[in-house]
Amino acid sequence: MTRMLILGGTGETGSWFARYFKQKGFDVAVWGPSGRVDVAERLAVRYAHDMKQEVRESDIVLVSVVIDRTVQVIREVAPLMHPGSLIMDVTSVKSGPVRAMKRYAPKGVEVLGTHPMFGPTMKSLSGQTIILTPVEGKTGKWLDSMKGLFESDGARIEIIDAAEHDEIMAVVQAMTHFAIIGMGSALRALDFDVQKSRRFMSPVYDILIDFVGRILDQNPELYASIQSNPKAMAARQTFVAECMKLCERADAGDSEGFKQMMRDAAEHYGKTREALQRSDRVINSRIGEKAPAENSSLQR
Amino acid sequence: MTRMLILGGTGETGSWFARYFKQKGFDVAVWGPSGRVDVAERLAVRYAHDMKQEVRESDIVLVSVVIDRTVQVIREVAPLMHPGSLIMDVTSVKSGPVRAMKRYAPKGVEVLGTHPMFGPTMKSLSGQTIILTPVEGKTGKWLDSMKGLFESDGARIEIIDAAEHDEIMAVVQAMTHFAIIGMGSALRALDFDVQKSRRFMSPVYDILIDFVGRILDQNPELYASIQSNPKAMAARQTFVAECMKLCERADAGDSEGFKQMMRDAAEHYGKTREALQRSDRVINSRIGEKAPAENSSLQR
Repeated sequence: MTRMLILGGTGETGSWFARYFKQKGFDVAVWGPSGRVDVAERLAVRYAHDMKQEVRESDIVLVSVVIDRTVQVIREVAPLMHPGSLIMDVTSVKSGPVRAMKRYAPKGVEVLGTHPMFGPTMKSLSGQTIILTPVEGKTGKWLDSMKGLFESDGARIEIIDAAEHDEIMAVVQAMTHFAIIGMGSALRALDFDVQKSRRFMSPVYDILIDFVGRILDQNPELYASIQSNPKAMAARQTFVAECMKLCERADAGDSEGFKQMMRDAAEHYGKTREALQRSDRVINSRIGEKAPAENSSLQR
Repeated sequence: MTRMLILGGTGETGSWFARYFKQKGFDVAVWGPSGRVDVAERLAVRYAHDMKQEVRESDIVLVSVVIDRTVQVIREVAPLMHPGSLIMDVTSVKSGPVRAMKRYAPKGVEVLGTHPMFGPTMKSLSGQTIILTPVEGKTGKWLDSMKGLFESDGARIEIIDAAEHDEIMAVVQAMTHFAIIGMGSALRALDFDVQKSRRFMSPVYDILIDFVGRILDQNPELYASIQSNPKAMAARQTFVAECMKLCERADAGDSEGFKQMMRDAAEHYGKTREALQRSDRVINSRIGEKAPAENSSLQR
């Protein structure tokens, strides 16, 4: 039986993985900086009271503490691990943690950066993406076995370099969330009545306003950590700068300038028609959900 | 047979309504400033070569020209209409057009501001919202018949004052679209490879990136006109200002400040958990669509 210790396993993401690996037959122990033994009990896994001893005896140490503490925890625990074991992290930024694991893991200990592209509200791995960032010379058999395990549950695995990961995620996660949180903050600043506005839905607003609520409902820690991606600053600054340009044009009544920015963006984007068709399907399935019979009861 | 003239009926939105009302048994004629008789032929409706004469003889004149020309067209045609007829517009801004219709329509001509909350890619009215902005003393029997007609096809009708409409739409449409177009423009400014990024989807990005493409695929004229809403300036300026604040905090590594803005926004939004649950359903139906074989049933 593979023995796994999840550091930060008492948090939301860590608990998700504790449940997952337990169900897969792993002997799971959790530890968290706040000593929440009750969470371990609820998960029906062991709590690692002697954390360092548990590290020494584990086949896999999975690091799921908050991003600010990730590197420090890796530095503390990696040197204690035994040859043939694996250290992996599940933070949403990869270059820093992977660099630390590479540096502090002794010879013979494998390293695997891992980024599950979904939050702890997802019930299953099916259809979800997991990005793995291996380290040359430091990743071997464990990569194959993790990949195989996740794939057997329907996950899509992408293998990529840690630096490239951060560059892509600066847009895919950091900029996207940033825009949505910016909307949420603007709704507050405008004192806009979100619940009432549901009467006046456009198809895009209908879904987007729920995405705003979705992100605001979740742990701000996770979203702040995604912004700590070293490449995120350029992405969000570019987003703000483009919004300012668009805003100036619209404010000045420069309709032609506004339209030109849209056309330029469309040209760069490419395949906008396919995106429209996919989004039509999303919108129509939402409409179908709302109006199962004849727009019956749960209109709003 | 009700005789209807659609001014701008050769455009995308106008054509949508030409098809719709023709199918409902109306005697439809279209006219457009660019004289596209071919579009009328394709729609199998009459082209109003003598536009003013057609206005005089119409029971309903529906104005669907570009927003910049809407008031001018109303001023030209409304005075020609006969008592008992109806003038309606379908632009996405309501106070200006409704004011013009009220001013230029002779006594006995009814006025009905109309805002279909969907684009011309929607196949049916089912589950869609249409906002009607009547004018006291100028709207009567036609309001009931239009409302009844749209509702019989499954549309949700909301009746509201033109000024209040513009205030709500400044956020629901103008700010929402603005944020999405800003993302599209940032993707271009960052020279980000959108197609490649599809390998690294998070559930939110997956849907949002298609919304970016969806809006960029459509007529920029429509989106520029939505920004011309007199209340839109405050909404987009507030959005930009909130983004700048968030950006400053994230750039400064002020994780606590960033999280506090999220918490404040969440508190104002209210019912974030319900939004999360609805968005989970949207995400899961998308995942189900992608992997119909293995995963369909047990998503949740």
